[in-house]
Amino acid sequence: MGGGEVGLKEVSSFYSEAGGELKEFKKLDGELTPGSRITYEKRLTEVDVAFFGLASGDLNPLHFDEEAASRTRFGGRVVHGMLTASLVSAAVARIPGTVVLLEEGFKYLAPVRVGDTVRVEGVISEKEKNRYRIEVKCSVGGKVVAEGYVRVLVW
Amino acid sequence: MGGGEVGLKEVSSFYSEAGGELKEFKKLDGELTPGSRITYEKRLTEVDVAFFGLASGDLNPLHFDEEAASRTRFGGRVVHGMLTASLVSAAVARIPGTVVLLEEGFKYLAPVRVGDTVRVEGVISEKEKNRYRIEVKCSVGGKVVAEGYVRVLVW
Repeated sequence: MGGGEVGLKEVSSFYSEAGGELKEFKKLDGELTPGSRITYEKRLTEVDVAFFGLASGDLNPLHFDEEAASRTRFGGRVVHGMLTASLVSAAVARIPGTVVLLEEGFKYLAPVRVGDTVRVEGVISEKEKNRYRIEVKCSVGGKVVAEGYVRVLVW
Repeated sequence: MGGGEVGLKEVSSFYSEAGGELKEFKKLDGELTPGSRITYEKRLTEVDVAFFGLASGDLNPLHFDEEAASRTRFGGRVVHGMLTASLVSAAVARIPGTVVLLEEGFKYLAPVRVGDTVRVEGVISEKEKNRYRIEVKCSVGGKVVAEGYVRVLVW
């Protein structure tokens, strides 16, 4: 770590106190083969939107300015699409082994609101040696908000 | 905001003190048409990796455990692929108007290290009414680390 920078432990404390949902990171059990399912869910709060906005630099008013966002067709603020997609990164990182993201593709179908719990459901569609393709749907209360795929390499 | 949750201002202070690079959010000038270019760059530090890891729940040891990561072919920790992609979200959010992400596709070609400055270069490849497709390359020191595209809607 460079001078003046803080690590995960200190950021975790701030995050938790600020209303973030700390998720335990644990690997899935057993071997994954085509047809195997991976599920994961996480609530996206104010602090997640702020964390994503600052880490990326995406301070789009649609995510931060309630007044401006209320004048759009969404009628209010929404979560960054790529923050929803990031939950897929977390979901597939749970595959046993060292997981490396190779490729991704997503379509965003409906807005996600601050405070929504997003559920990720993935199905392994291809496995060739140590490379997997996983088809993914993200949903809020049963409504699909994003869908796509990722390809990962597992060491 | 819900009880106990903090907003962007408070998180920004923490982020900046923790070594994060605060980027000013400003819109691009002029009309964008096919061939128009968008560039953006940001340094990704420890705090960005921690912010992304906590917001997503992706605490993959490849991003957080130097000892475990040093035993992989990467020889050390790398930044989440989707954190690199998130800079594309920030880049296209600078298009004048209210920008909504519709679709994205990325391939990850080379590792990004904690502390690297990632440069995003986008070229508008299609414009149909208020929908744009943008081809994107992300690079570190001239080496392409990710490439792909996004589609956005502008209100």
